[in-house]
Amino acid sequence: MNFKITQKDSRSSARTGLFETTHGTIQTPAFMPVGTLGTVKTFTPQELTFLDTEIILGNTYHLYLKPGDDIVKDAGGLHLFSGWTGPMLTDSGGFQVFSLARLNKISDEGVEFQSHIDGSKHFFTPEKSMSIQRNLGADIIMAFDECPPGKSDKKTVEKSVNRTTMWAKFCLKYLKENPSHFEWNQMFFPIVQGNIYPELRKNSIDELVSLASCGMAIGGLAVGEDKSAMLEMVSLCDEHLPVDQPRYLMGVGKPVDIVNAVSMGMDMFDCVIPTRNGRNGHIFTDEGVINIKNSKYKSDFTPIDETSGSPFGTQFSKAYVRHLFNVNEILGVRIASTLNIAFFMKLMKNIRSKIESGEFGDWSKSFLEKWGKERSVDISEKNID
Amino acid sequence: MNFKITQKDSRSSARTGLFETTHGTIQTPAFMPVGTLGTVKTFTPQELTFLDTEIILGNTYHLYLKPGDDIVKDAGGLHLFSGWTGPMLTDSGGFQVFSLARLNKISDEGVEFQSHIDGSKHFFTPEKSMSIQRNLGADIIMAFDECPPGKSDKKTVEKSVNRTTMWAKFCLKYLKENPSHFEWNQMFFPIVQGNIYPELRKNSIDELVSLASCGMAIGGLAVGEDKSAMLEMVSLCDEHLPVDQPRYLMGVGKPVDIVNAVSMGMDMFDCVIPTRNGRNGHIFTDEGVINIKNSKYKSDFTPIDETSGSPFGTQFSKAYVRHLFNVNEILGVRIASTLNIAFFMKLMKNIRSKIESGEFGDWSKSFLEKWGKERSVDISEKNID
Repeated sequence: MNFKITQKDSRSSARTGLFETTHGTIQTPAFMPVGTLGTVKTFTPQELTFLDTEIILGNTYHLYLKPGDDIVKDAGGLHLFSGWTGPMLTDSGGFQVFSLARLNKISDEGVEFQSHIDGSKHFFTPEKSMSIQRNLGADIIMAFDECPPGKSDKKTVEKSVNRTTMWAKFCLKYLKENPSHFEWNQMFFPIVQGNIYPELRKNSIDELVSLASCGMAIGGLAVGEDKSAMLEMVSLCDEHLPVDQPRYLMGVGKPVDIVNAVSMGMDMFDCVIPTRNGRNGHIFTDEGVINIKNSKYKSDFTPIDETSGSPFGTQFSKAYVRHLFNVNEILGVRIASTLNIAFFMKLMKNIRSKIESGEFGDWSKSFLEKWGKERSVDISEKNID
Repeated sequence: MNFKITQKDSRSSARTGLFETTHGTIQTPAFMPVGTLGTVKTFTPQELTFLDTEIILGNTYHLYLKPGDDIVKDAGGLHLFSGWTGPMLTDSGGFQVFSLARLNKISDEGVEFQSHIDGSKHFFTPEKSMSIQRNLGADIIMAFDECPPGKSDKKTVEKSVNRTTMWAKFCLKYLKENPSHFEWNQMFFPIVQGNIYPELRKNSIDELVSLASCGMAIGGLAVGEDKSAMLEMVSLCDEHLPVDQPRYLMGVGKPVDIVNAVSMGMDMFDCVIPTRNGRNGHIFTDEGVINIKNSKYKSDFTPIDETSGSPFGTQFSKAYVRHLFNVNEILGVRIASTLNIAFFMKLMKNIRSKIESGEFGDWSKSFLEKWGKERSVDISEKNID
């Protein structure tokens, strides 16, 4: 087992752990910045490491289209291609073909879709997704799942749950018959579906548990459903997922959602919020989210965030960064993205340290009180960046 | 005198020197990256320093429009506003109002123009330019000059030379009556005009020499004239400009032009080529300029430039950077801009060391032979970035 729980919270399901991969060990709960196209937007790998990033995510759908997974394979895998030497996870492309591409036809065999870039036709099967992820060579790879729209009826969701189980088996079979191209193992996570229907979530877990040995993911949440329904589902998953494997809550999220989900035993998260919101001038600081484009910062020469985990927090003033956004300078986007990744990484570090010191309950309560009021950040509906 | 010549080449007018400012000493010949709007595009100040940048340039015209020189003054000057703590030079806005804005009316008093951003009307006088440059607080500030179009007839150019002289006097009067807002001196450079007319260049120098005490600039070149005409003018300026003051050849340029101009006694240069061409995927390497967007690099996993002055040269492959450009990732632009600034800084370092060791003649000959063949880089016609 590559996962070791190091501390359990006495009053919630929160836990800290160490998750070992060939490219390094991840401290959980962990946040994974999204590197859609082989780069976390604006960052060099060294800059991410400097901000305490331990694992990043890549997107199968995007990298298959550009530059092509064959090229990434020839480069020696996505680690060598991109220069990121730490742990890496790729999603399966499932979420993207259902949310981003134009769907042509879905069958038990797979999904025919048209590229969002040029309309070209492609066909993803569970085996194809595994083949691409073998070429990309991430340490953790995801099952190819069917992701019905957020507001689907129960019958539709039930069908997708069954198909997702079937596809997970096809994925595993392919992986057994086609070993890693590189000198490291790739760990496989099945993805639990079932939308907001408790029985279906439960069924999905029951069916997938036997296919899971390294970790399990929860998909189909944070796609527009009520916040309470989402947390109810996470709690249900907490109850039924194996305790000794890492649990990855896909596409989540906002700081409050992360803190809530950690208390429900979730270990891994990814979201485009830090980088995408950064590009729009929304900067996470200890005082809350500020929209740096606001004219009230025009002559505000105070540092953006004196308690930031990035030196940029004290090095640059609000007025300067507002100016950079106002004239579309790349440095502005870089500073905002950096401060946001630093914020999320500091948040995870805090979470871990509060669990370890036994203070997570009180800390999370006051954090949720403070951040529950924040309304300026929307959940990102598409898990790409 | 803030300028000290440290070595003279025996076979040309090339020389090395040290040019002292309150914010640090510049080794000459020096190349100044262009930070139009208070940032050299994509870079933090620390990254520029890491690449051996000693002085950067800011643009009066742009900073007056956004964020406004009053805001920069309130921040404590452009150094504090931008975080660049080294020597800094601002141009006067003369070149930009004549090349970038829409000109409404030119008189002996000044220039009425409309902003290239929103069409708003503004009036620049020599005094106004000095007032803005006092607010920006650069170590070196430039005279407000009239810049007629590149192919102007002699009569037009003669008129502009006379007006430029008159305006330089107005500038100096203003500066005497209105001292620096900050705790450092601002050194004033008059700008020699005269296009490609030798007598007019000579007249311009004769008139301006008495107004110069810290350095002189040559304007109105690299604006589309023949290369031979340009070099002839530089040579003429070499003959007539004071030897003991730094000579700043504005808007130059390409590596071959810089090497030629150094041999004609020029000490300071600025150009947008490294950053602008970088944004277009043109990367300067020791093997020549490569267009990284070219499909021939699709599977070329060799480092971009193993002898680069930036670690990016070996860290990233051609195929990866091509991919980044292909999908419009900011990191691609960052890598290309970084490699180009590193190239120019290494070039200047080489030039200085070859002058110091007495090998400049042989070195420059072989450099010009190699780089004279490069056709893929165009002279940038507008000195903004």
